[in-house]
Amino acid sequence: MLEQLKQQVLEANLALPRHGLVTFTWGNVSAIDRQQELMVIKPSGVSYETMQRDDMVVVALGSGEVIEGAKRPSSDTATHRALYLAWPEIGGIVHTHSRHATVWAQSGKDLPAWGTTHADDFYGDIPCTRQMRSEEIVECYEWQTGQVIIETLRQRDIDPLAIPAVLVNAHGPFTWGRSAQEAVQSAVVLEEVAYMGIFSQYLTPSLPAINQTLLDKHHQRKHGKHAWYGQG
Amino acid sequence: MLEQLKQQVLEANLALPRHGLVTFTWGNVSAIDRQQELMVIKPSGVSYETMQRDDMVVVALGSGEVIEGAKRPSSDTATHRALYLAWPEIGGIVHTHSRHATVWAQSGKDLPAWGTTHADDFYGDIPCTRQMRSEEIVECYEWQTGQVIIETLRQRDIDPLAIPAVLVNAHGPFTWGRSAQEAVQSAVVLEEVAYMGIFSQYLTPSLPAINQTLLDKHHQRKHGKHAWYGQG
Amino acid sequence: MLEQLKQQVLEANLALPRHGLVTFTWGNVSAIDRQQELMVIKPSGVSYETMQRDDMVVVALGSGEVIEGAKRPSSDTATHRALYLAWPEIGGIVHTHSRHATVWAQSGKDLPAWGTTHADDFYGDIPCTRQMRSEEIVECYEWQTGQVIIETLRQRDIDPLAIPAVLVNAHGPFTWGRSAQEAVQSAVVLEEVAYMGIFSQYLTPSLPAINQTLLDKHHQRKHGKHAWYGQG
Amino acid sequence: MLEQLKQQVLEANLALPRHGLVTFTWGNVSAIDRQQELMVIKPSGVSYETMQRDDMVVVALGSGEVIEGAKRPSSDTATHRALYLAWPEIGGIVHTHSRHATVWAQSGKDLPAWGTTHADDFYGDIPCTRQMRSEEIVECYEWQTGQVIIETLRQRDIDPLAIPAVLVNAHGPFTWGRSAQEAVQSAVVLEEVAYMGIFSQYLTPSLPAINQTLLDKHHQRKHGKHAWYGQG
Repeated sequence: MLEQLKQQVLEANLALPRHGLVTFTWGNVSAIDRQQELMVIKPSGVSYETMQRDDMVVVALGSGEVIEGAKRPSSDTATHRALYLAWPEIGGIVHTHSRHATVWAQSGKDLPAWGTTHADDFYGDIPCTRQMRSEEIVECYEWQTGQVIIETLRQRDIDPLAIPAVLVNAHGPFTWGRSAQEAVQSAVVLEEVAYMGIFSQYLTPSLPAINQTLLDKHHQRKHGKHAWYGQG
Repeated sequence: MLEQLKQQVLEANLALPRHGLVTFTWGNVSAIDRQQELMVIKPSGVSYETMQRDDMVVVALGSGEVIEGAKRPSSDTATHRALYLAWPEIGGIVHTHSRHATVWAQSGKDLPAWGTTHADDFYGDIPCTRQMRSEEIVECYEWQTGQVIIETLRQRDIDPLAIPAVLVNAHGPFTWGRSAQEAVQSAVVLEEVAYMGIFSQYLTPSLPAINQTLLDKHHQRKHGKHAWYGQG
Repeated sequence: MLEQLKQQVLEANLALPRHGLVTFTWGNVSAIDRQQELMVIKPSGVSYETMQRDDMVVVALGSGEVIEGAKRPSSDTATHRALYLAWPEIGGIVHTHSRHATVWAQSGKDLPAWGTTHADDFYGDIPCTRQMRSEEIVECYEWQTGQVIIETLRQRDIDPLAIPAVLVNAHGPFTWGRSAQEAVQSAVVLEEVAYMGIFSQYLTPSLPAINQTLLDKHHQRKHGKHAWYGQG
Repeated sequence: MLEQLKQQVLEANLALPRHGLVTFTWGNVSAIDRQQELMVIKPSGVSYETMQRDDMVVVALGSGEVIEGAKRPSSDTATHRALYLAWPEIGGIVHTHSRHATVWAQSGKDLPAWGTTHADDFYGDIPCTRQMRSEEIVECYEWQTGQVIIETLRQRDIDPLAIPAVLVNAHGPFTWGRSAQEAVQSAVVLEEVAYMGIFSQYLTPSLPAINQTLLDKHHQRKHGKHAWYGQG
């Protein structure tokens, strides 16, 4: 069942330790089959070193029920489901506690678009959510985490594919894309610009955001209709 | 004698360089057999690259006497003994000079619980001990180091298994757990949150601690009676 | 065609990930055959892991036309051409988004010559360009990036071989040299001194530049007519 | 000639890249045969990857003449000679541009003894030299570098074996010991405490030095007459 998607999700999960984004069993990647409304996600607390394709868990998008798999799905499964339900255009999601993105999340701050490295993959500042309210934490915490992410992008009128990342306040980053692989790419670039952002702010404390024309240019170069980066 | 425990202690020690927590022969891990009141600990100043199971030293919990082993035990042995004697619920202890935890220890500052990465493993701020007094340093220094750690947790009414780490002022971290392996996990996570904490404070100088409800939630998720992280 | 130069360019490109200067397919190196007025450059968006000598693209210096190669050349090709046309003394160019050089570029700040590590390879501060104007970004962006670099060095009266690096404002570093290999060396040293510079400024906020005599001495030692470093 | 010492010097040099202290061909280690008044030192600008025992150069302590070896000795040879001549108790010297020690050197600041990691190997603050005067730079620069180091320790009444390291202003660290291997250990520990020191000062800007009794205790534990660290 969904062997190909499971393989993609496995490989996307294995890319997290390879890019230095996770410690122990932290982090998780999922992908979705929109036709069947089934999500494939990493099992909870399983070592990256021994993880196999068939450890991936198949979960029903609507109900959250486990459809296939001997293991328990990631404890963040409900957050993934919330995002897939809200945004039909996305196909993969990543969550990590990567060090520098988490620093921004813990600090409760948006990560400004300060350079072309940021602009190439994110069309504007990476938003940080508001703090979650006690009632959102107590009940259905992971589902509510998804709702706060959705609210954050909606309130700021952000297209999820234009800025495929968010910083969950006091927690850490979620990224996404049209596929699990794209979501991993966003996670890696987010960590890179989060690192640079800390020290850019140190060197120039009131650093303004990148010039809008330059932001437009770089984003179009890699992601516009007429992108001219890569082998197209 | 205690072959299985020695093997666990060996493996826990070898995990320290693998996680980048030690330089040269720094750092040490021990574990205890509560029934026999015997502690197994790393020998002093032996290279991690050549360390063998039978290099581990067996020490009597009460007297500190070496019961088995050709090598001298870690110079921090008396600190380990003090903690095992004070806290019957713990089974393993780790000491390192890992960079960022040591920065907090040298700075004489508690490490605040600033995010869910911290909350997952530590149920509140990691305390830093008071400075040791000259008379505590001159005589029975390592034993007194243990006493200051115990005093710190007692005065703040901290359950050692709820916050399994301490920063010894001007020195470095000690962590513990029900086993040597758990103590290593605490050492790794402590280093991770110590790193993040430095830069979180930089981005938001008066950053308040994590919301109590969120602290509760994350700690229960991984460590509560009804933990729902992992394969249970 | 130009097999030897392609091999040099391939090896110089492969040196970028080995020195930790690039993520994914970021970064590019080129070299020039001055006699034939042909430039060899990395293809756009190709993985460093699978890159072959024959993936290198041959481009006409004057027209920018692809002369040989099945792949599209780096999207930064026009910047490389601009520099080769302006500076006949250079033979190789590198562009990266290496973390700390990019931090300085994003911050819009020159990197001061603060020590002998800097002086050994750069005979003075590494300049940061002015911000590009909207009209320069909208049309012929990569070519205009080259023009802004050239303007920066000209206005400050910098000999490109004396200070073989620039920080493009809000973007990242370009470095160069008599060969692709020299340009890579400059990129590595720039990243090193950019890292040190961040923390040097932190420790001593108004740190003056290195003493002129010491700058002279170190630069001559490695790069003067009577250099006495190395095996001559 | 001096095959054993050459082998030690080779191995000590190779330890520098293994500990992440050098880039390219930077850094050098020497050792001395006091009986024969001959010094063995790394050749200048030779790659660590291909370096062989017989590349090591034998130099006369008094005259600086090359006694054996086909290669030119390190450009810092005269600094090494000056230190060996001033301090008969040392047997090995290391010079690097390791990142964080160099940050302190560039910043012109002493590195305070802020914790037991420092105290274990250095019995007090690591001094930073005064800036060199123009006339010292112009003529016999490397020899004068040695003289400034010697002056720094003498003026502060520092025993070279008690604090086996110095920060040369605007340049970088030199360390030493009774052997090349000890000098490498000092270089590694210096880099470690230099890193920690930057962030310790950030967390507590006016951090006082470690308590004198604790400094004494830790230094004696590893280096005193009755050291009780290691296997003795």
